[in-house]
Amino acid sequence: MAIIGATKAGGSNRQALTDLDREGRDLFCRWAREAGCSIEIDQMGNIFARRAGTDSGASPVLAGSHLDTQPTGGKFDGVYGVLAALEVIETLNDSDTPTSRPIEVVVWTNEEGARFSPAMIGSGVLAGEFTLEYGHAATDKSGKSIGDELHRIGYSGDKPCRAFPIHAAFEAHIEQGPILEANKKTIGVVTGVQGMRWYDVVLTGEPVHAGPTPMDMRRDPFRALHLIVADTYEMAGRYAPHARVTFGDVQAEPGARNTVPERLTLAADLRHPREETLEQMEREFRAIVERSAALAAVEGSVRVEWQSPAVEFSSECVDAVRTAAQTLKYPYLEIVSGAGHDSVYLSRIAATAMIFVPCKGGISHNEAEWAEPGDLAAGANILLHAILDRASP
Amino acid sequence: MAIIGATKAGGSNRQALTDLDREGRDLFCRWAREAGCSIEIDQMGNIFARRAGTDSGASPVLAGSHLDTQPTGGKFDGVYGVLAALEVIETLNDSDTPTSRPIEVVVWTNEEGARFSPAMIGSGVLAGEFTLEYGHAATDKSGKSIGDELHRIGYSGDKPCRAFPIHAAFEAHIEQGPILEANKKTIGVVTGVQGMRWYDVVLTGEPVHAGPTPMDMRRDPFRALHLIVADTYEMAGRYAPHARVTFGDVQAEPGARNTVPERLTLAADLRHPREETLEQMEREFRAIVERSAALAAVEGSVRVEWQSPAVEFSSECVDAVRTAAQTLKYPYLEIVSGAGHDSVYLSRIAATAMIFVPCKGGISHNEAEWAEPGDLAAGANILLHAILDRASP
Repeated sequence: MAIIGATKAGGSNRQALTDLDREGRDLFCRWAREAGCSIEIDQMGNIFARRAGTDSGASPVLAGSHLDTQPTGGKFDGVYGVLAALEVIETLNDSDTPTSRPIEVVVWTNEEGARFSPAMIGSGVLAGEFTLEYGHAATDKSGKSIGDELHRIGYSGDKPCRAFPIHAAFEAHIEQGPILEANKKTIGVVTGVQGMRWYDVVLTGEPVHAGPTPMDMRRDPFRALHLIVADTYEMAGRYAPHARVTFGDVQAEPGARNTVPERLTLAADLRHPREETLEQMEREFRAIVERSAALAAVEGSVRVEWQSPAVEFSSECVDAVRTAAQTLKYPYLEIVSGAGHDSVYLSRIAATAMIFVPCKGGISHNEAEWAEPGDLAAGANILLHAILDRASP
Repeated sequence: MAIIGATKAGGSNRQALTDLDREGRDLFCRWAREAGCSIEIDQMGNIFARRAGTDSGASPVLAGSHLDTQPTGGKFDGVYGVLAALEVIETLNDSDTPTSRPIEVVVWTNEEGARFSPAMIGSGVLAGEFTLEYGHAATDKSGKSIGDELHRIGYSGDKPCRAFPIHAAFEAHIEQGPILEANKKTIGVVTGVQGMRWYDVVLTGEPVHAGPTPMDMRRDPFRALHLIVADTYEMAGRYAPHARVTFGDVQAEPGARNTVPERLTLAADLRHPREETLEQMEREFRAIVERSAALAAVEGSVRVEWQSPAVEFSSECVDAVRTAAQTLKYPYLEIVSGAGHDSVYLSRIAATAMIFVPCKGGISHNEAEWAEPGDLAAGANILLHAILDRASP
């Protein structure tokens, strides 16, 4: 799969609904058919490769992820979850093991959001987060829409893109963070996904001359900024180890070296796996900004730019993953995903869990992305046992 | 004078060596000749209008400032110092008061630096900071040079632009800061000009994902930034009331909300009227950056971008200004200029002092610039008495 869209630096460039994405999809479908699966494509181009169960009326167990990549992406993000699920089917075939429920390997459309915004739009439409019209209308920078591109590459399917009965769903994925590696664990039992909230903090003072203006006659936004940053990190410490506080950007206006800024705009990203805790963090953050602005005699405001609620995965599915790790004696850690995945949307309509494997240095969305073959095999093994747990009575 | 280049918002746009600057210069020269002065123009277009003294061989007392303005400048910055000096001569004429030394009203070329960089280039060439060739070669954004523009407007003079014997020099100016107004003082006895140093602080960490990366596994430049800002303000407090610390700009790279910045670049401006103290402040500032970077496990560097040494004005000239304020019973304050002036360069070759008068809200380089007529008259009165003190035996 990695040969399709391979980059010189060893990564993959297989953006959603490009000719290369079609090649990847075609290859997946060929492999799935060779494994005896029947293929269905839905209206958003999501692919479902089905291995029949012995109970013809039973709802399926889903496993999969996505094949699209960032423009300078790696060989593992998404692809691993699809191919691990296919490997599970091939293993069941090789050992001639039936399951009562069908197993479906799913390939979601445009998970990355690199070509079309928003990310995870294929699973989002299926789970009801977006309408089908919205999904089809999303355009890339050149104005081409998902709807048109699905037709062009032959992946505009007939299956309605909407929720259907799914007994359980699993997604194997590289961690995209450093925790498993640092803790020398092979498997991350993913219990949920962090809630995320994005804020713009705007601090408005008075743009006065750096020379003549005494320090105590200034209304200096930097006086508020340093307090906000310090106190928000302190708050993150109180909600450790799961809280995340990130200041990713800051801008000064007018941005002249010898003028106190009139305005500082600080981008903040707060995360926590428990929604109530994140709510409490937001209250404290707002109080920190208010107090710091008052101390600095500047105006402070906090605007929510985006938010994604915390997700707690299905306890049955998480248990299936944990039990598999224990049975197979892999060193494991319960972990919360810090990044979004198709499983976030899927978890709204189906019992869902994820399996993480370590990636080198926590590096992802990067051509240098790397995971050890032994860890990838372990993750696929966990996936096999978790699926078996949920697919048989 | 303010009619020439008047802006709709009540300010002045009379940038150096434009047709409007020529009109202003012509008007000044006409007024000076009408006051009985002889005019000399030097090779940088600096104008010297001389009222003879009774001792024909004595070196002159200089007073003046500049007529050029910012593009959206005010009616007082510079102009006031020129016209106050001319008023002194007219007052001496009206009262038929001779002085033993000649008095010269000086108009310096391109003080603002708005059209041609650097600022204060006319006084800078005269004092030996820049060569004449450098002064002539400076160009505006359209490529026109000071040398060519001086010829074009007829102000390329024959008088050598170099140091000559000057007994004393005074410059009256609006404060361009809020101190006199806040302290309800009419006169600022300017004892010197702050030393200024500009720095870029570069903090380099590791650009990791806001979600998956635990707080204690980050190398986050913001962790250093907030310590640096806090500790540098604390240092400014220890060197109060004269120390100034300004962070005018900050930039984050890559500047993505959900990524810890790889790099923060912070612009700092440190000022103090005593050079040794400023030197000590720089040492402490470098130590603060080093310590903060180490605490945050990021790399920190401090680069000097520009500096201007502190100036202490001539005690004789400062005394003359202070004595005049006491004699005339104007409320006064000893003050250090936070901004650069032609007097900074002039003080290298002649005993120099400045006189400040309040300006409304400390606002300058702005069409809203305003000074009360009574304060302007008081400043001119001080200038008269200070000149008389130095121009007669």
